[in-house]
Amino acid sequence: MTAAAQDIDLLVSEVGPRDGLQMAGEIMPTEAKQRWIAASAAAGLREVEVCSFVPPKVVPAMADAAEVTRYAGTIRGLTVAVLAPNVRGAEAAMAAGAQKITVPISVSEAHNRANVNRSRAESVAELRAICARRDALPDHERPLIEAGLSTVFGCTIEGIVAEAEVLRLAAACVAAGADEVGLADTTGMANPASIRRVFRATRAEIGANKLGGAHLHNTRGLGLANALAALDADVRTLDSSLAGLGGCPFAPGASGNIVTEDLVYMLDEMGLRTGIDVGRLLEARAILREALPSEPLYGFVAEVGTAKGGMKVTRRAATTW
Amino acid sequence: MTAAAQDIDLLVSEVGPRDGLQMAGEIMPTEAKQRWIAASAAAGLREVEVCSFVPPKVVPAMADAAEVTRYAGTIRGLTVAVLAPNVRGAEAAMAAGAQKITVPISVSEAHNRANVNRSRAESVAELRAICARRDALPDHERPLIEAGLSTVFGCTIEGIVAEAEVLRLAAACVAAGADEVGLADTTGMANPASIRRVFRATRAEIGANKLGGAHLHNTRGLGLANALAALDADVRTLDSSLAGLGGCPFAPGASGNIVTEDLVYMLDEMGLRTGIDVGRLLEARAILREALPSEPLYGFVAEVGTAKGGMKVTRRAATTW
Repeated sequence: MTAAAQDIDLLVSEVGPRDGLQMAGEIMPTEAKQRWIAASAAAGLREVEVCSFVPPKVVPAMADAAEVTRYAGTIRGLTVAVLAPNVRGAEAAMAAGAQKITVPISVSEAHNRANVNRSRAESVAELRAICARRDALPDHERPLIEAGLSTVFGCTIEGIVAEAEVLRLAAACVAAGADEVGLADTTGMANPASIRRVFRATRAEIGANKLGGAHLHNTRGLGLANALAALDADVRTLDSSLAGLGGCPFAPGASGNIVTEDLVYMLDEMGLRTGIDVGRLLEARAILREALPSEPLYGFVAEVGTAKGGMKVTRRAATTW
Repeated sequence: MTAAAQDIDLLVSEVGPRDGLQMAGEIMPTEAKQRWIAASAAAGLREVEVCSFVPPKVVPAMADAAEVTRYAGTIRGLTVAVLAPNVRGAEAAMAAGAQKITVPISVSEAHNRANVNRSRAESVAELRAICARRDALPDHERPLIEAGLSTVFGCTIEGIVAEAEVLRLAAACVAAGADEVGLADTTGMANPASIRRVFRATRAEIGANKLGGAHLHNTRGLGLANALAALDADVRTLDSSLAGLGGCPFAPGASGNIVTEDLVYMLDEMGLRTGIDVGRLLEARAILREALPSEPLYGFVAEVGTAKGGMKVTRRAATTW
């Protein structure tokens, strides 16, 4: 967490430019990505995951990763986060000035192979090598390295994921040199009870100062309830995506990441300080609408406005409560 | 709560046939209402709010209230709940065999006048008269009378609603003879912190045995997070609506009540016993689709299935976590 984050109660990390755009049917132009990142920072977001460093032939939408990372680095007060699955990607990220690098490792062996084409043990070794690269840099150039554990709450290939495996892998990542370990509900299979249980157990295993954020998907509509459960477990970094971009390819409503605007609205209403202006987030949706015209945009607050903003009530012929 | 409810951890009360249908653009035929209520009971719902007893010229969709109530009374093990805003409606409800009658009273004076055309004091007097009618019945015919406090978490007319007013009105309703006092987020302005605070304060004011359920709307997408917060505050009855019927007249996504299927899915996953089969709830949506073809149906689980049911993963050209 940056120094600038000290006046906030928790950090909302916008992951849309990475997690959303890699899923989109269209490729967002670099210029639009830059406007989105700038608008995010202007709305008060302190951290944006701006891209992933992966081969352009695999993910064409991320071909401009270095350019986008360098641009984001010019925005004062913004922590520039990226994703990199291996040493090669992490080296490119460091060269471009990334300040936080998330290295994804699935708790499910089968998912890890499907996602990054290596075993979990090989991914941990890769993480160790990435941390060695970090340590070779001068202090002020060192990025924070987060191990991003995926499929923590269930796997679409292996099914149930054992909590003991989560703890074992989290400890292995810390031993490999990770600064933080974040936990992801990659498959939308978490529930508030499992969120509370697994985050608490992970903290007990690796220590509060090593526990990273919660990366939650809204696949089955439990996203905000799970975010609330994560807060109950003292998680203080929550990933989310503007307009829920990164939507599941299934149907309307089944969005991908939790919606940044709705999350920030909930936190605001609860009296928690995020430093983020919901109104400006809502305005930033226009960038997505323009640059990705065929992509569905999600979010409830965008439809009806905030509670403080009031709501036009259509008088209905009904007695309600 | 009925004797049959003793083997469950909490009661999910389906309010769609009342709260949903009074809002729908089409009138559901009596026969379809009956099939829906029967399907609800067959899915394991122990309580269904089947209608409201209001003048048919005001709410044509409820013209068959007595017939629907009598039908529901033939279903073994089902608590037949209804809404009635006044003595006249409550008498008709009792005559039809209603087992639970919710009497709506808004904490906001302006909302109460807009909703039931009288002051809050007049509504409390009406509640007292309804309780007197209840007490005049033989023991085994007495319905449970719930005071349904509306606009507890904010009002679209008056804005902020003072917690002290909620407590004052809750106590007045108990003094008037209400068996229970339920709290509603009529306007979708609650948040998890206000839910926890106000439910706890109300319990402290009137006692745990008088605290009824939470009637939550999903206007700004916080519905399930608010339901989780209500559970944290030891609320043990949650209202919801199949397919979120009762949708806000605004836009897709801005549904009305929380979605029964999604709520039950969340509770199931958390290991709480509801006695309800999500699969059969999902099947019951077909009745709505057929009888209300132009009404939008909401819900995430209906789109992607339960976590246990698995999910077909479209392999994407992206590295995720």
